[in-house]
Amino acid sequence: MIITADNLQITNKTIEKALEEKLPEPIIKMVRRCEKAGAQAIDINSGPLGRHPEETMQFLVNTVQGVSELPILIDTANPVAMEAGLSVCKNPVTINGFSLEPKKIERILPLAKKYNADIIGYLLYSNSHVPQDMTERLNIASEILEISQAAGIGTEKLIIDPVLVPLSWQNGKTQAFEVLEVIRHLPELLGFPVRTIIGLSNLTTGRGYKEKRLLFEKTYLPMLSAAGLDMVLLNIFHDETVEVAKACNRLKDDKIFSWEGF
Amino acid sequence: MIITADNLQITNKTIEKALEEKLPEPIIKMVRRCEKAGAQAIDINSGPLGRHPEETMQFLVNTVQGVSELPILIDTANPVAMEAGLSVCKNPVTINGFSLEPKKIERILPLAKKYNADIIGYLLYSNSHVPQDMTERLNIASEILEISQAAGIGTEKLIIDPVLVPLSWQNGKTQAFEVLEVIRHLPELLGFPVRTIIGLSNLTTGRGYKEKRLLFEKTYLPMLSAAGLDMVLLNIFHDETVEVAKACNRLKDDKIFSWEGF
Repeated sequence: MIITADNLQITNKTIEKALEEKLPEPIIKMVRRCEKAGAQAIDINSGPLGRHPEETMQFLVNTVQGVSELPILIDTANPVAMEAGLSVCKNPVTINGFSLEPKKIERILPLAKKYNADIIGYLLYSNSHVPQDMTERLNIASEILEISQAAGIGTEKLIIDPVLVPLSWQNGKTQAFEVLEVIRHLPELLGFPVRTIIGLSNLTTGRGYKEKRLLFEKTYLPMLSAAGLDMVLLNIFHDETVEVAKACNRLKDDKIFSWEGF
Repeated sequence: MIITADNLQITNKTIEKALEEKLPEPIIKMVRRCEKAGAQAIDINSGPLGRHPEETMQFLVNTVQGVSELPILIDTANPVAMEAGLSVCKNPVTINGFSLEPKKIERILPLAKKYNADIIGYLLYSNSHVPQDMTERLNIASEILEISQAAGIGTEKLIIDPVLVPLSWQNGKTQAFEVLEVIRHLPELLGFPVRTIIGLSNLTTGRGYKEKRLLFEKTYLPMLSAAGLDMVLLNIFHDETVEVAKACNRLKDDKIFSWEGF
């Protein structure tokens, strides 16, 4: 399970200010903190970037890859910003992401082939509604596969995000277990060892004190790992969750168990 | 997942001394601490009780049920002690347990019918060796079911322990994942909603500092819960593990999610 930091995001005031003023230092500092905390990949969540999308995304990608060799996920719904980022990115790169939304199929998906990038497909309806159960998600996954193959994307480039919803939603708990079943069944359904990713921070969005949010994050994460999850996108500064993520990886690697490194 | 305390055991020096001197207070204190820490059942692990098995087990059971209404697991390989405990136990009671070992089939198993008690069947070979993988465990489970039915035990009384081994064993990690698959597949294989139990303390027996042991306990426990585990036997004073156990139960209950109680 690749531990991916979701911390480099525009909703962080420091990062927002750094982007407005084109200051690399706060971004560099953030990337270094993420690496130190155990990040194995960095998600660059720039938001839609209404103004200067190309310039801003290239500044972001260049600043990150100037100090880190970690794989980068470019996380924006703006296809202009996405392409600008891809065109300068030298680190391993993943497009985050596309869905059945027509605009994304037309403008984002083709970039995966053009830039030979991995791409995340979200199991969402074309109107961005969240599917309700495993069957709905697996149907969407089949469509996502079909569309990506039609766009010339190899199965090895595709990563599926089954879309986790907050526990505080009326069916949040049920959905959490449906997501586990989706992760478990996708390879068999699609007929190849499809990789999966989850945005763990979604689970505890909204109400709830930090300690309680952490408790449910670290409780649910091993369930994802056991189901076969390949990548987790999380708040890398949630130390306890990251420790549990590392312990999951230690349990699942193919070496004889050792206590070293904890 | 019923959270069961494994703390009331003869290997605890205070308990050993209390038994030797027939002092109820240390046992009462331990039971109250277990309840306060969140125990939903108490395992009475008396060891083989070479001397005065009947008197000692009855003293134990009576002391526990004198201050607690929690279900009791009677955990001894001594059939005389087992029967003595069962004969006085008024709380809900489980025999812990039997296996394919001929002595246990002859002397322990029939007590389940005689005292209408639940009984735990260990997935071990008749020589007490641990099976190596899921297939071996499922084969033993079929034998356990057959033998218990022949002894007139209803399927609703049977609880299966797939036997967890320490991570530090050469194949410890592999076995941990085999155990998850066994828990997942048992109901389908045996054809009824068979209950399962795991002795979680086994996972981190042996080497390893306490913090590291706790990390792997609390990482593995949600995997067990997601696989469908019904009872977990653990050190109830491992607060963090117990918090995670409660969070697992909160995720799996059929109520709308709430942060209350944490």
